[in-house]
Parts: sequence; C-alpha cells; structure tokens
Amino acid sequence: MDKNNDALVEKVLNEMMKKGISVKGEDQSKSSGGLQMNDFLNSTSAVPELVGTRKIGDTIGMCIPSVDSLLLDQLHVTKRYSVLGVLSARSGAGPHIMAMDEAVKATNTEVIDIELPRDTKGGAGHGSLILIGGYDPSDVRSAINVALDTLSTTFGDVYNSAAGHLELQFTARAAGACHAAFGAPEGKAYGLICGAPAGIGVVMADTAIKTASVNVLSFASPAHGTSFSNEGMVHISGDSGAVRQAVKAGREVGLKLLGDMGEKPVNDFPSYIK
Amino acid sequence: MDKNNDALVEKVLNEMMKKGISVKGEDQSKSSGGLQMNDFLNSTSAVPELVGTRKIGDTIGMCIPSVDSLLLDQLHVTKRYSVLGVLSARSGAGPHIMAMDEAVKATNTEVIDIELPRDTKGGAGHGSLILIGGYDPSDVRSAINVALDTLSTTFGDVYNSAAGHLELQFTARAAGACHAAFGAPEGKAYGLICGAPAGIGVVMADTAIKTASVNVLSFASPAHGTSFSNEGMVHISGDSGAVRQAVKAGREVGLKLLGDMGEKPVNDFPSYIK
Amino acid sequence: MDKNNDALVEKVLNEMMKKGISVKGEDQSKSSGGLQMNDFLNSTSAVPELVGTRKIGDTIGMCIPSVDSLLLDQLHVTKRYSVLGVLSARSGAGPHIMAMDEAVKATNTEVIDIELPRDTKGGAGHGSLILIGGYDPSDVRSAINVALDTLSTTFGDVYNSAAGHLELQFTARAAGACHAAFGAPEGKAYGLICGAPAGIGVVMADTAIKTASVNVLSFASPAHGTSFSNEGMVHISGDSGAVRQAVKAGREVGLKLLGDMGEKPVNDFPSYIK
Repeated sequence: MDKNNDALVEKVLNEMMKKGISVKGEDQSKSSGGLQMNDFLNSTSAVPELVGTRKIGDTIGMCIPSVDSLLLDQLHVTKRYSVLGVLSARSGAGPHIMAMDEAVKATNTEVIDIELPRDTKGGAGHGSLILIGGYDPSDVRSAINVALDTLSTTFGDVYNSAAGHLELQFTARAAGACHAAFGAPEGKAYGLICGAPAGIGVVMADTAIKTASVNVLSFASPAHGTSFSNEGMVHISGDSGAVRQAVKAGREVGLKLLGDMGEKPVNDFPSYIK
Repeated sequence: MDKNNDALVEKVLNEMMKKGISVKGEDQSKSSGGLQMNDFLNSTSAVPELVGTRKIGDTIGMCIPSVDSLLLDQLHVTKRYSVLGVLSARSGAGPHIMAMDEAVKATNTEVIDIELPRDTKGGAGHGSLILIGGYDPSDVRSAINVALDTLSTTFGDVYNSAAGHLELQFTARAAGACHAAFGAPEGKAYGLICGAPAGIGVVMADTAIKTASVNVLSFASPAHGTSFSNEGMVHISGDSGAVRQAVKAGREVGLKLLGDMGEKPVNDFPSYIK
Repeated sequence: MDKNNDALVEKVLNEMMKKGISVKGEDQSKSSGGLQMNDFLNSTSAVPELVGTRKIGDTIGMCIPSVDSLLLDQLHVTKRYSVLGVLSARSGAGPHIMAMDEAVKATNTEVIDIELPRDTKGGAGHGSLILIGGYDPSDVRSAINVALDTLSTTFGDVYNSAAGHLELQFTARAAGACHAAFGAPEGKAYGLICGAPAGIGVVMADTAIKTASVNVLSFASPAHGTSFSNEGMVHISGDSGAVRQAVKAGREVGLKLLGDMGEKPVNDFPSYIK
C-alpha cells in the first residue's frame, strides 16, 4: 500500500470521528493519560464554585463558600459546616477517598459525607461523592486541589481490562477519609485489595491475608458494603510493612487471574505501591 | 482525494455497519431525534397489550386489560386495579414521571407504582417502571399514549455530555405522579434540579435555593433517595414563579460546570422551561 | 470497486482494531460464540485457584482449597466450609445460578452464598457471585467445571437487543441454587420468566401465568428482589409440563414486545426450552 492509501485510511478514521463513531480504546487512554490530566481545567469558568476538573475518572472539585442552610438541612452530613468542599467523579471510589485522605491530613478540613454511586460508565465499580467541611474557603479549596492533584498517584494501582479491574491502595497512616469510608483506624497503616468481577477479589483477599499478619477489617462484596458493584474487596490494617506486603501479594494473584480472562490489565498511571 | 475515494469511505462505513461496529454518536442522535420519535411504533404488532414505543429513552408503553390476580398479588402496587398501564424505559425517570403526571391529570387513571432501576445504559442515572391503574382499558391506553407523546417535552431540559448529564423539570401544578415519586404537594408548583456527577447537583441545588424563595422538599444523592445513581437532585415546591426562577438558575450553573468537564452538554429536544 | 479496495477496507478495519476502536457487534458475537467458549481457558496459568474461564458473561471459576479463617469470618456464607468454590461473572445471574444448580446436583457440594451485582457492562441486568462449599477440593473443582460447561445451555434462552433483553429458564427438578436464589421448592419444576426493560417482564409474567396452572413464587422488579436492575421477573413452580408451557408463552410475547422496540432479539446459544 502506498502513501496515498495511508492518507485515505487517515481520512476514513477522521470521517468516523466526525460521525461520532465510538473510538473506545482511544477514549479510555485519553481519559486517563497523565499528560492530559489538566487539559480541560477551565480557568476561565464563570462559576466561582469550581476548583478544578480531571479527565481521570471524570472528576470535578468544587467549593461552596457559604452553603444555603435549607440545603444543608437536607444533606446527609455528619457535621454542619457552612464552607463545603465537593469532590465528585463518575469512576473511582478508592482513588478519590485515598486522595481526600491526604487532603484532609494536609489542611484544616474534615470529611463529612462519602457516598458511592454504582457508576464507572458501564464498568464494574463505583463513582464517588465526597463532601468535606471547613471554616475557611481557602482551606477547603486548598484541600480539593490537593485531592485532585493526588489522583494521578492513587489511580496508579488501578488496573483495567475489558473483563474487569483491580484496585490496590496503601497508606502508612490512615486519616479521616479512610476511617469514614472503610472503618480504618486512624494513624495506622491501611490497605485495600479489590478485584472485579467479585470472585477475583475473594481469591486476592485470601492470598493477601495468608501472606502477612494483618487485621481484617471487613470484606465487601456485591451485596454487602458496596452499592451492588461487581467487586470483592478486603480492607486490612496493621503494621505498615505487613499491610504493604499483603497488598502486593493480592495484586500479584489478581493480575494473573484477571489476565486469564482475556487481555492483560493495564494501569493508566505508574504504580505507587512498591 | 477524488470522488472514488469518497465512495470508498462510504463503503468502509457501510462495511462497519454490517459488521455491527458501534456507531455511538449516531445511535444517540437517532435514539432521540424528534423526527424519529414514532419510527418504530409497530402498529402491526401481534401483541394486544402494546400501546406504543419511543426510541427516546428506549421506552415502551403497554396496557393489560385484565391482569391475572395471582400476578397482582405479587406486584408492589398501592391500590388494586384490574386494568393496568405500564410505562417502562431504559433511560429516564424524571421525564417519564413528569409525562405520567400530565397523563393522569388528563385521564381517569391513577399512579400505583413507581420504581427506578439503576440504568441509562452505562450513563449516570435511572430508567423507570411506572404502573397506573384504571377502570377502563381505553382510559388506561389513552393515559399511556399521553405519556408517550409528552416525552418529547419532558426530555427538553435533559442535557447530556460524555462526562454526565443535567435534568430540569417544572410543572405549575403537580399531580399524582410527582407526589408519589418526589413527595410533591399536589396542586402546587414543583421543580426538579438534577446534575450528574452528583457533586454538580449539590452546587446547582445551592444556587437554585439561593435564587428564589421556595420550599426544599428533599435532596437526593447516590446513597439517599436514588437507586445508587450518580446524581445530586433537589426537589422544590412553592409559588410557580419562584420555582421556575430557581430551576432556571440551577440550569445555568449546571450547564457551565458540566461544560467545564469537557464538551458542551446538549439536549435532544427543545427546552420547555422558559 | 476492485480487489485492491477490498484489501484497503480490510486494512482500515485492522487499523481500527489496533487503535482499539469499539467493534461492539463483533465483540458481542465473539464474547459468546459457542466455538470460542474455551479459547482463553488458560491451562498454563500460574494461579492454582483457577478452574477455568468463559468469555460468555465474562465468567471465571475458581477453587480455594483451604480458605483463610480470618477471611471466612468476613464472608457472608450460610455455612462454614474450608473448601470454597467461586463462580463470578460480569453478565448473567440466572444462567449462572441454573448452571450451579446442575453442578451441586452432580457433586457433593453446597451453595453457601449468592450475590447479584448490578452489572452486565451497561446492560439492564445482573452479574453474579456464587460461592459453594465442599469437603474435598476435587469435588469443588468438579462442581465449578460442571457449572462452566453448563453455561452454553443456560444462556440458550437469553435474548439480547440494543433495547433490552429476555431471559427464560426451566428445570424439571430444582436444587439448592434455585432454592437459595429464588425460593424455588427443591425437587419440583421451576421456571424463570424475565424481561428488560422491566415493563416487558410484567406483560410476560401475566401471559405466562394465564397460560398454565402454576404457583407464582414471587415477582421481582427494579425496587423489589433485584439489585436495581431494569428487569421484571416472575418465578414459578409446579407441575413440569405446566411450568414449561408457561415459560414458553412468556417467551413468545416477550420476543414480540422487545422486537417492537427496534431490532429482533437474538440468543447466542441454541434455545434449550422446547
């Protein structure tokens, strides 16, 4: 085939894009490519509440400097604050909760609501809605910014394939977000080991727990502790080294099992659990 | 490129269609284009229960003239009727409930069940199953027809983008469907302000409530008052002018925020809230 | 158009595949084509727990020969066994439950947990997580293998279209899986009649029950007895001939109604209910 034909192929592909033909694989890589993390952070937005957006997970962060008290009455928050921070995403619960855990550690803010929609745009997992409260809008905006910037780390051990996904999380010192969402004891190491479809998570959990001496906080599955997501997920706590070792063992067996269902699972950002 | 190549491009596209390659953008516009609202209403269907179908939301309307009493025992209806009307859709809860609200106003029928599946075919929201009861099959068929025909109005303020969606609804006089689904006081103006991902709905609600003096009936979010959809949604009631003003203010901020997540959100039918 | 152009078309299609462009129709047929049922059963997998995988429904079967007791404490099982079998899928609840029903009949194993995620990768139904227990790993592996091999039968009366799906199941003698999942009396004939969107299931159920004298065990719908799936589903029991006749009548009206919503619904495997 000559150069003309290559141009023609290009033209057809362009034609397809114009006609809105679904370019799934591409979408996915774009939606999470690190280089494009900030490409639609619209700094000229006319909405004062906007803090920022990230393509990864279709995430938006906002701050309401003084929430209407009639609305506050109807929100399901654990504590009343008039300054609200909002982190909301179509895909990702663990990554957003872990990112917010770092954010509340770094700022004078508090997690007051975590809700997990059954989303991921046709995937097997959750999206997230996280509300934080603070006394000062600049604190809250700063916390939301920290969370948005931490997503490229906390998505590092999320592995996707056509058949399902895996998620691993680890922190040496859990704070308020991990405590509120997963019952993690604050100040201790915490790990999350999750596989989808859910059965993979069962085997990952078994392997992880056998690998190192950790406390098993709970096991979440489609009918217990999830919003009917297709995930099996163990929450562990304990000594930092042991938790990390367990998480890595779960990851290893999960990658093999999910790979056995078809293609190799891939992460969109560099793995952070080493 | 010459004419031959254009023909070739056409050929490739046809080949793709034959092979069943997903033509997403096209699907979507077809699925809701006003001109095609009636294009697969199958008037020669052999099923006597069929009233009609609409591509928008993948909606089907049916009437059972005399429901089997063993089945009626197992349905979760608020009142026993032997003549049942059924409105069922893959995408759309608000639009179908509002359309049914008009339908019960216009006919001698009553809403006896509203259930909201977590659907929308990979989107962030709900589908719907609405049952109505009546004394006469012609009344019930007529109500289902009114509802089907009203969808092109009630989908008018549903705005979609790749990142999420917005939904606005308004009626100057709420009836039985709005009451059953949202707790709206009958006979009063009612408004719905909804954004997805859910966090957008929080800010839309705050803006709307601050704009005009309205009663806040409730705020629904992924873990409260939805079926784990990724929506934030405020239900308001009160003076007709104030409710309308609040709905419009929520829409304005929602369109900006969702637009900040990528592409401009678009509605498939003309906006009806003016 | 000449042969060169055909080659070019082929090239474009290949280009698309490489770029990961979604080839939906093809995916679907591949994902369930009988000939390919075993094509990625990875016999060289390094994970000893793996029993096998099937593309249909993105299904994986595993066996844990000696589950960690800390994990077992957190699982929601009806009875403690140290040998666990796991059947897990992105799409399909009925097919997997019916397949497991055959498996426990054929082996010395027992169903100890059935959970239904709201999945199907953007479709209207459920995935599944089924745990079985046994005293011997070879029994459990054997049961999981029977279940995997039975899927090509139990998917035989699952019919899909862009608008929704239908599912019909029938057994002359229900066992533990049908009992645990649907309340079917063991040893008696059992039938499942399901349509999506849910309203189609209401009419299918009405038609089925009117056709033959059967016991109506329950009716499941988006808000009752499902995980917010968009399904209407009746569970029936009784005389084998009557149950079969009712299931077939439900199937007939369901195929027409779902067909009235657009394209003809198709099954990926031969129908087994005759």
